[in-house]
Amino acid sequence: MRVHGINSVREALKAGKVNRIYISSSAKSSRISGLVSLAKKSGIPVVHVKNLNSNVEADISPVRYLNLDLIIEKALKSAGVIVFLDSVQDPQNLGSVIRNAVFFGCTGVVIPKRRGVQVNETVIKTSSGAVFHINISRVSNLANSIKKLKKYGFLVLGAEPEGRNIGEIQFDFPLAVVIGGEDEGISKPVRKQCDEIVSIPSHGKTDSLNLSCASAILLYEIRRRIK
Amino acid sequence: MRVHGINSVREALKAGKVNRIYISSSAKSSRISGLVSLAKKSGIPVVHVKNLNSNVEADISPVRYLNLDLIIEKALKSAGVIVFLDSVQDPQNLGSVIRNAVFFGCTGVVIPKRRGVQVNETVIKTSSGAVFHINISRVSNLANSIKKLKKYGFLVLGAEPEGRNIGEIQFDFPLAVVIGGEDEGISKPVRKQCDEIVSIPSHGKTDSLNLSCASAILLYEIRRRIK
Repeated sequence: MRVHGINSVREALKAGKVNRIYISSSAKSSRISGLVSLAKKSGIPVVHVKNLNSNVEADISPVRYLNLDLIIEKALKSAGVIVFLDSVQDPQNLGSVIRNAVFFGCTGVVIPKRRGVQVNETVIKTSSGAVFHINISRVSNLANSIKKLKKYGFLVLGAEPEGRNIGEIQFDFPLAVVIGGEDEGISKPVRKQCDEIVSIPSHGKTDSLNLSCASAILLYEIRRRIK
Repeated sequence: MRVHGINSVREALKAGKVNRIYISSSAKSSRISGLVSLAKKSGIPVVHVKNLNSNVEADISPVRYLNLDLIIEKALKSAGVIVFLDSVQDPQNLGSVIRNAVFFGCTGVVIPKRRGVQVNETVIKTSSGAVFHINISRVSNLANSIKKLKKYGFLVLGAEPEGRNIGEIQFDFPLAVVIGGEDEGISKPVRKQCDEIVSIPSHGKTDSLNLSCASAILLYEIRRRIK
């Protein structure tokens, strides 16, 4: 959904509902500069574009993003699983992973504010509405957020094509699973924070799975062994 | 890919490469009637359309479809798994299931000639080229084809949201897994041929998975227990 005009955009930004802000290249004022610095402080991307209907517009998230601390707290109470997505680009993949996370009773899904698709209409559709049944958080720095989880005793598993067979990993709650994006996989700083790199053993002529299918298998395997 | 003109279309049809034939509503000749009956005999859909560049056109498959008997033979020799897709509409789902089938070393994938998407460019892309590493067959009647498999001793598992937990099923090769389409699931006549309806237990607020994710988990579980 799009919101137009500086006042609406600023309020949406304060409410934590903005995915991305668009500013007309011709628009210049101290109020706009103020909005840009507020966006920067909140870690929300600002894009300058030539042709825009209003001076300022924003993509609004259809879901309310939760503070990561709240999700950590819930996961600690319920022996939960938190899924981290590192730079997923395709909204269908994000929607599908969220659907998997809900199906397997995960506590929350964490995405980066930049470098990755945000929750939009395609994500809702592909998730079959599952986005409304799970806590979603957006963070400025995925690696730092994972570091925080580790302090609380989370075991952090990163999923990559080359890693230890997930079937042989000993694990317990609370648990975090990191899924890498379509092109780059898990970024180096995030990978460094993972306790273990795990993978699904291939039996055929291709060694990689679609990331939503990989997440489905990992969450299945976790639930199969620890209920 | 499109092929134009009655001669090219007829040759492609004989070679088993045609997904669908388009005939201009204004075009009428005995040669065209001959083509239509040949298409019907081969179970290839014929669509009459108003605006067409040529009198006759055809969508050509980028892969060569194999005879089901050959796939059965290969599966019997190699203790294989054959995946049946009942009326899958979304090419991305078909591509993703094919990728899963290759990853888990399945012998072949079987799709219906009608009531479902055929292998096209989107399927190739979503499969990450995996379509070129597996035997794909198209059949006129899925239920009859599964009946045939059962005569050869295949155990046939149908995947539905309501069924026996896949983790508790005893199975052995040769094996066939039937995945239903996005909207209707497995059709009644096909379901009747399944030895067992299996499902993946949900742990959350949604009770269904995307069909490609469901197929990934089923094939993972099968390979995990029988190598």
